Amino acid sequence: MLLSIIYIIGITAEAMTGALSAGRKNMDWFGVMLVASATAIGGGSVRDILLGNYPLTWVKHPEYLLITCVAGVLTTWLAKWVVKFKGVFIRLDALGLAAFSIIGCQVGINMGLHYGICVVAAIVTGVFGGLLRDLICRQAPLVLHQELYASVAMVVAGLYLLLQHYGINDNLTIIISLVTGYFIRMASVRFNWRLPVFQLKIEGSVH
Amino acid sequence: MLLSIIYIIGITAEAMTGALSAGRKNMDWFGVMLVASATAIGGGSVRDILLGNYPLTWVKHPEYLLITCVAGVLTTWLAKWVVKFKGVFIRLDALGLAAFSIIGCQVGINMGLHYGICVVAAIVTGVFGGLLRDLICRQAPLVLHQELYASVAMVVAGLYLLLQHYGINDNLTIIISLVTGYFIRMASVRFNWRLPVFQLKIEGSVH
Amino acid sequence: MLLSIIYIIGITAEAMTGALSAGRKNMDWFGVMLVASATAIGGGSVRDILLGNYPLTWVKHPEYLLITCVAGVLTTWLAKWVVKFKGVFIRLDALGLAAFSIIGCQVGINMGLHYGICVVAAIVTGVFGGLLRDLICRQAPLVLHQELYASVAMVVAGLYLLLQHYGINDNLTIIISLVTGYFIRMASVRFNWRLPVFQLKIEGSVH
Repeated sequence: MLLSIIYIIGITAEAMTGALSAGRKNMDWFGVMLVASATAIGGGSVRDILLGNYPLTWVKHPEYLLITCVAGVLTTWLAKWVVKFKGVFIRLDALGLAAFSIIGCQVGINMGLHYGICVVAAIVTGVFGGLLRDLICRQAPLVLHQELYASVAMVVAGLYLLLQHYGINDNLTIIISLVTGYFIRMASVRFNWRLPVFQLKIEGSVH
Repeated sequence: MLLSIIYIIGITAEAMTGALSAGRKNMDWFGVMLVASATAIGGGSVRDILLGNYPLTWVKHPEYLLITCVAGVLTTWLAKWVVKFKGVFIRLDALGLAAFSIIGCQVGINMGLHYGICVVAAIVTGVFGGLLRDLICRQAPLVLHQELYASVAMVVAGLYLLLQHYGINDNLTIIISLVTGYFIRMASVRFNWRLPVFQLKIEGSVH
Repeated sequence: MLLSIIYIIGITAEAMTGALSAGRKNMDWFGVMLVASATAIGGGSVRDILLGNYPLTWVKHPEYLLITCVAGVLTTWLAKWVVKFKGVFIRLDALGLAAFSIIGCQVGINMGLHYGICVVAAIVTGVFGGLLRDLICRQAPLVLHQELYASVAMVVAGLYLLLQHYGINDNLTIIISLVTGYFIRMASVRFNWRLPVFQLKIEGSVH
């Protein structure tokens, strides 16, 4: 229940920031709706396609797709405010990332998959929305270059699996994972935490 | 039956225009066949993967894939003629778009999906072929920038659902939807109709 | 058995060369693991998604995903050696391509698909890993421009199907297909064999 509310807030916020990327590329309304929806619910869709978990969430709940399309188009008017309240959106995005990771992990558990694959499901849910956005908008994928994003999803999923394994109460497990994920993400934004980068300077290549 | 014939004409025309994009990027024959096939039958494949509607059309009917590959390779010799008869191809593309949309819509109906998702299925069928083509050819996706394409698919699907809802004869429903889609698309090309564009000029971003 | 060993060697080698591409784009460790895994097991994943052949290999065998991630991260230290032993990797890649093609073909046969689709399954397995790598790394897809790659997969698959059709012993069929694929690929690298290229110089376009 709590997770559902945060999920809806999360996809709305993601859709609005996705729409900004579409706006920077001068896309038309259809492009805005596509990028907004891909950013918000693309990660979950890729996860379900990889796992063969049909029907996809938005096919079962078309209202989620409606929310992301409407949020995208509204952003064409509200862009100024979205940028102004950047801080709020960064917080909603952090909360959304934690919620997406938990949901992704739960999907894996419900399908009876290996723990490692549950963590992968969490990462895909959290990360592939942004990846699709950057692919459609033809810009360098942020999540592969400079922010702690996949790592947050991994920690949230690991924590969730651990707490569940020790039989902690479900609601408590969700809240602890959510709060931990939120604060790690916010700390990584504030203190500019990053994963090590692989810079290959050698000329020559294998291909 | 009529729909099948127009479908085959449509994928042939789409494959040939897709091959031109591959030629502009100096791809080899395999690249030409891949781009031609992705343009022509990629939209339907994405739709079926999203809906979990297996087997995909070309897996059941390998002859469709053969048609698009052959049409693609033939285009390497016929490129001059394809460009010369541009007007014919724009008409075939318009007809194909209408047919693809109806077929996408029918798939959704046959799977018992929500009306909104049937419309989405129509749009995905009509639009994602061109999107895949532009992604593989690394060019800005046309359908997100400057043409009434998704909107035509939406109108065709909506009209089709409406006529079906009111119990109109199947063949009549298909013909009305086809003709309407064709003329809206042709009008949008001639009169340069476009969706509103979202141009974001504010610096700063949420990411 | 032999095929399994060559498969594991193949995905390790592919993951390491994929990681080099990530390094050239200054990706972080997550990016390196993603590109390494997409290069190594992305082709098989695309094949299984297109054919609806669930669960995907790495979902059933998470250890394969672990291998590609570890191989990717190790490459951040071993890059110099990978480039130095370029010749070894080109050989492993050729062997991997042949193995991937045979496995792809077998998947199609086991699903009872049309022979033509089995060949397509082989090509997708062999080619789409590199295609995904180039898509994520935002570089022109090599396999569509300048190397005999898809053609090798096609020949291997055709030969495999032919030998099976004539009731040749399974192990012999695999070995003949592997060796033939390996040598055609190596010959195409050495003698710079290519498919004809389609260079479109006519201005004007259909879109």
